[in-house]
Amino acid sequence: MRLVQFQAPHLMGPHLGLESGNDGGIINLNAFDPTLPKTMLEFLEQGEATLSVARRALAAQLPVLPRSEVTFLAPVTRPDKVVCVGMNYVDHCKEQNVPVPKEPIIFSKFASSIVGPYDEVILPPESQEVDWEVELAVVIGKKGKRIKATDAMAHVAGFTVAHDVSARDWQMRRNGKQWLLGKTFDTFCPLGPALVTKDSIADPHNLKICCRVNGEVVQSSNTNQMVFKTEELIAWVSQFVTLYPGDVILTGTPPGVGVFRKPPVFLKKGDEVQCEIEELGIIINKVV
Amino acid sequence: MRLVQFQAPHLMGPHLGLESGNDGGIINLNAFDPTLPKTMLEFLEQGEATLSVARRALAAQLPVLPRSEVTFLAPVTRPDKVVCVGMNYVDHCKEQNVPVPKEPIIFSKFASSIVGPYDEVILPPESQEVDWEVELAVVIGKKGKRIKATDAMAHVAGFTVAHDVSARDWQMRRNGKQWLLGKTFDTFCPLGPALVTKDSIADPHNLKICCRVNGEVVQSSNTNQMVFKTEELIAWVSQFVTLYPGDVILTGTPPGVGVFRKPPVFLKKGDEVQCEIEELGIIINKVV
Repeated sequence: MRLVQFQAPHLMGPHLGLESGNDGGIINLNAFDPTLPKTMLEFLEQGEATLSVARRALAAQLPVLPRSEVTFLAPVTRPDKVVCVGMNYVDHCKEQNVPVPKEPIIFSKFASSIVGPYDEVILPPESQEVDWEVELAVVIGKKGKRIKATDAMAHVAGFTVAHDVSARDWQMRRNGKQWLLGKTFDTFCPLGPALVTKDSIADPHNLKICCRVNGEVVQSSNTNQMVFKTEELIAWVSQFVTLYPGDVILTGTPPGVGVFRKPPVFLKKGDEVQCEIEELGIIINKVV
Repeated sequence: MRLVQFQAPHLMGPHLGLESGNDGGIINLNAFDPTLPKTMLEFLEQGEATLSVARRALAAQLPVLPRSEVTFLAPVTRPDKVVCVGMNYVDHCKEQNVPVPKEPIIFSKFASSIVGPYDEVILPPESQEVDWEVELAVVIGKKGKRIKATDAMAHVAGFTVAHDVSARDWQMRRNGKQWLLGKTFDTFCPLGPALVTKDSIADPHNLKICCRVNGEVVQSSNTNQMVFKTEELIAWVSQFVTLYPGDVILTGTPPGVGVFRKPPVFLKKGDEVQCEIEELGIIINKVV
């Protein structure tokens, strides 16, 4: 299933929906069952009960809203955590000429940086070095602490596409070299288009992943290049913190980012960035 | 006013209350007005409307629950952000023999690390170097982006006491030197006992601040030693991110932490840490 959060002119506030196939129209889950919550966070907190309602909705022959009539929100908003992983692609480490990390390197964005799959990324006047990073994002479905890698997939609701927009000047040279500020400007975390439930993906660690800027391919790899896979990342992070439904883990980016090009290339106003992952879909964000 | 979140055996779930003076009993705000929200986050989102109800409750002669009959929760739970500031006391910089920063250094904890004012701090087996840090915490009351320093206090709901528990091994030597993991273990952010509204504090930048471990004073300073004051911190952080009601800013710690002692001293099971700030109160956390 492809779960979404959306708005439409004839509906009050955010709603939960189902994408009828990658790039298809939207089934309004709240119209199908008015007792369902209207946010993904609450939907995920109710676990199997709400998921089974969504499965029934998908099986029924329900009316489908054309994509042109809805506004897509990020599939998860206001999670407790947006966990990010640094240097987690073998080929991205080679690009930087740094050894592959022996342990995951964890940093974070504030949830306030999340925007929808087709929203604009705002270039802040404070940065001259805003860069792209396509990433596979894991969405947690079940609370847990000290989760074993072998149990980790039971805590995953599904996957989505993330754009880990990064202000390299702030990440690498300012703020005492703590990456947070460079990663967490408002609009620096486009997510979507859908939370694709894990049962709908053949193998999350064998998906083509790519980023295009103004139509030109700048990143192209496969999630099989990830150093630490979903299960290991959940085991690692949950040693430190309790994971909650809706928590998002950005699993790192493949090579091809702008800052390591010679000469470096950064995003400018008017650019259009497309982040695409096989089976999950594509997010398109204009830079303004 | 001294706003609290609390539980009591005869009440279902968390409630909002008022501390009747520092260390006094609790007035149940939800009993006074059942239309009030039960979480501080929602209470703050409603702004002046809910604050004026609380002021009326304080003026009325209402029954007071003895402290012994309630469990204090953190005054804010599940905020969008816990923003932290590094090296923000002039005397703490001297202790480390580092220059006073020219810009605030910003890092973060996940909201999942927040616990109540009298809750236990759990020593994780992954760290051998867990240290104390008393801090003045600012709680945001009004949403804002690019807030001017001169307007900043209009965005503050009030202040509370924070304990920025810190695993120095993870902060300083592991995780690619990104501080996040060392700062964000579950239970590493005790807050409380009350959100003291700004109108109840003479001057937040002239308060004695101190930390005691097993009764011995280990940190003793004054918030007048802060390098960047509340107004400047809000202006700085809100350049990057939208601040929301309930967001918490930990404003840095004075000198006397364990890691810079010769030899270094760290917390061990059975220790009791008291963090106290003049006019705000005292939080007491046993280490287990």
